Amino acid sequence: MNPETYTARRAALRAAVPEGAILLLGQQETPRNYLANPYPFRQDSHFLYFVGADLPDLAVLLLPHGEEVLFGPPQTPDDLVWHGPHPLLGDRAAAAGISLHAPVDTLGARIADLTAAGVRLHYLPPYRADRTLRLAELLGQRPVAVGEGVSGELVRAVVRQRSIKSDAEVAQIEDALAVSHEMYLAAYPLVRPGRRESEVAGAMQGVALAHDRAQSFLPIVSVRGEVLHNNSYDNVMREGDLLLVDSGTEGPLCYASDITRTLPVSGRFDPVQREIYQAVLDAQLAAIAAARPGVTNRELHIIAARQMTRGLRAMGLMKGDEEEAVSVGAHALFYVHGLGHMLGLDVHDMEDLGDAVGYPEGEKRSDQFGMAFLRLARPLEPGFVITVEPGLYFIPALMERWEAEGKHVDFIDYARARQLVGFGGVRIEDDILITAEGSRVLGEPIPKTVQEVEAALGG
Amino acid sequence: MNPETYTARRAALRAAVPEGAILLLGQQETPRNYLANPYPFRQDSHFLYFVGADLPDLAVLLLPHGEEVLFGPPQTPDDLVWHGPHPLLGDRAAAAGISLHAPVDTLGARIADLTAAGVRLHYLPPYRADRTLRLAELLGQRPVAVGEGVSGELVRAVVRQRSIKSDAEVAQIEDALAVSHEMYLAAYPLVRPGRRESEVAGAMQGVALAHDRAQSFLPIVSVRGEVLHNNSYDNVMREGDLLLVDSGTEGPLCYASDITRTLPVSGRFDPVQREIYQAVLDAQLAAIAAARPGVTNRELHIIAARQMTRGLRAMGLMKGDEEEAVSVGAHALFYVHGLGHMLGLDVHDMEDLGDAVGYPEGEKRSDQFGMAFLRLARPLEPGFVITVEPGLYFIPALMERWEAEGKHVDFIDYARARQLVGFGGVRIEDDILITAEGSRVLGEPIPKTVQEVEAALGG
Repeated sequence: MNPETYTARRAALRAAVPEGAILLLGQQETPRNYLANPYPFRQDSHFLYFVGADLPDLAVLLLPHGEEVLFGPPQTPDDLVWHGPHPLLGDRAAAAGISLHAPVDTLGARIADLTAAGVRLHYLPPYRADRTLRLAELLGQRPVAVGEGVSGELVRAVVRQRSIKSDAEVAQIEDALAVSHEMYLAAYPLVRPGRRESEVAGAMQGVALAHDRAQSFLPIVSVRGEVLHNNSYDNVMREGDLLLVDSGTEGPLCYASDITRTLPVSGRFDPVQREIYQAVLDAQLAAIAAARPGVTNRELHIIAARQMTRGLRAMGLMKGDEEEAVSVGAHALFYVHGLGHMLGLDVHDMEDLGDAVGYPEGEKRSDQFGMAFLRLARPLEPGFVITVEPGLYFIPALMERWEAEGKHVDFIDYARARQLVGFGGVRIEDDILITAEGSRVLGEPIPKTVQEVEAALGG
Repeated sequence: MNPETYTARRAALRAAVPEGAILLLGQQETPRNYLANPYPFRQDSHFLYFVGADLPDLAVLLLPHGEEVLFGPPQTPDDLVWHGPHPLLGDRAAAAGISLHAPVDTLGARIADLTAAGVRLHYLPPYRADRTLRLAELLGQRPVAVGEGVSGELVRAVVRQRSIKSDAEVAQIEDALAVSHEMYLAAYPLVRPGRRESEVAGAMQGVALAHDRAQSFLPIVSVRGEVLHNNSYDNVMREGDLLLVDSGTEGPLCYASDITRTLPVSGRFDPVQREIYQAVLDAQLAAIAAARPGVTNRELHIIAARQMTRGLRAMGLMKGDEEEAVSVGAHALFYVHGLGHMLGLDVHDMEDLGDAVGYPEGEKRSDQFGMAFLRLARPLEPGFVITVEPGLYFIPALMERWEAEGKHVDFIDYARARQLVGFGGVRIEDDILITAEGSRVLGEPIPKTVQEVEAALGG
């Protein structure tokens, strides 16, 4: 993005939070197993949005009366030797449309001056221990006190701004999706009985890394699709397995993609797999078709839930009225999570800012199992980018528990459900942009129908 | 490793630090851009060595009188739903030869009891902010006070133990080296004019990930080999470039490999490249040939420096007596770093424990440029695994600075050196085991001589 974009974004933020000073902290290097062995650097997403500069140890202070200062490490002669020639701090500031810059070790004194002058300092909630420690040091407070000083006003202003994606931001997401597309092309030939999950995961990540792109999250590549938080890749794929692949990469400016496909290892879905798969696909298509400004994402979630309940009823897994089943949460035995989330610089966009992102002020999350995991419930607006990712899972521990509790016996046929232990799970996910009239699925299509998936696998 | 191995390691540690209690902290998840989006989990290396259990949020307390307790998160019914069935904490403890286990949220109270009873708590220096915060909380102290309480006695005992690798540990390193070998095979066909560095980096990392292996550090894959701390991969390789590849992966128990090769992009070294490359190779082979118990790694470093000085003198880049040149540090214009470091569970093994690893007690690092960067100076012992990685670099900023200062003009021909601006750098690195009689290069050989490298590239 050009300097004017960043300047305009900060001006809008300042207009929404007119009083006091605003501190935007960049990320520091994150050590893996010792200080000098860091994880791949990832800049803080808010910093990327408002400043853009993508290197460690920066901070920006927006002062009262419009002054803006970029703080960063000064370049020493030794840096030239070890790190080679790089843009100077002043050049970084200019690229962000910021006229002033200063050594980062003077930031504490500047903040102390503000505090002494009674100026309120707005900052966002820290999500890493190093940010907590740094804020504690800058504010001269104990770490536990840092959370209390977080600015709700700043949080809400950032959420309002980052929720609406510009065309340039959407283009970044589509750039990431183009790499996702290539990653799937690399995966298909490796989805074969006898191969390991890690071979698929490695090939897909290798494609992204060859483009110099990070993963937007740890990919899920698993024949145990029913284990939702599954980041191991040590199973061997067998005939009859379904491989669930949920992965994403980042565009050049770190915007995320997030795509899930479920692939039959033998190349063709068996009849039961096909029915479940179709139920999920129908739900995904129904939710996408209903997506438009003014509709809430909770409504889309319910549309998807009802559609899948219809499919499950046709298979004899559920029974009774589908609207009633969904309203009491019976479907959540199989559809355990929410329909999707915002997507942007973070794969769960702005998740560090909490429920201010997905829920209107004053509205609490449901505590019903299933609905409680819906990250986004509020009315959709043009410029939102969201994921649509319904799924059906057969989770032995959950089915046992509910059956033992006699839960929703009017809506669930447990005897039939028990036959699907070992089935795994199906999830289908695309990223969509809310437009003025409806929605648009982003990126080049990645095989999704039963026929397309089987053709891609050569089955 | 079997439970007896971990029990024996802890018993040896206890014997070396007989008084007080010993706290070994496992790693916590490390958030990337928000709390629920972690980097790939990497267990703390000391915890891997003494306990083995490879999952987040564990701690072990070695109490006076021999009691040992593994603290960890209790498994809730929800874990079964979200994470699937996993070994219980008691099973994890048994696998480490530990008989007692307790919920991790009781660790603070146990430590408070010890403190109240006047028992000294030994702990290692924290290298991550989350470890600092956690120790501060456990000890009831401010973060800045945590460093003061680090146990030098424990540090020295851990260094003594982890410095000597067992056969099983060496086998783990060789397992990682087998993957490194495959990574190079994937790289060769991609080292071609017109391709990008990231294509090579991506293919190599993809191979490791396909084996479900992490990188032991961020790889260097660069035609700018003279930029030593270079983790960008955005250059296009051109005819005449040298591509420096320094990368490593981890074995199943997280032991590291670390291999550097320098590859001519055109498939063949030009005459100047060949001479410089041969000087580095001769130095590496001379250092390996001299490696044996009782010799210090500083002596090996000097052997390599003198050998390269001879090569540079033959090329007219240096002049005068080579021993004198090396003793005053003139060679360090081109050979800017140290010969190597310990290798084990960390690629710079135990670097979190500081100079206790590489320097005998009471001995300070040299402050001479070049020698100051030598991480390992002490006498070698059977069972040490070390890297041997001499290199020669033409760093414009450094050459300009030294020439302007008139530094070592009796030993350096600056006019000739200036002609090599743009050459880049050459480094050649292998991992060796110190044996009773000498040393052994670990792993299957990866092409290293001029002829082997050219043949591998099909040049």
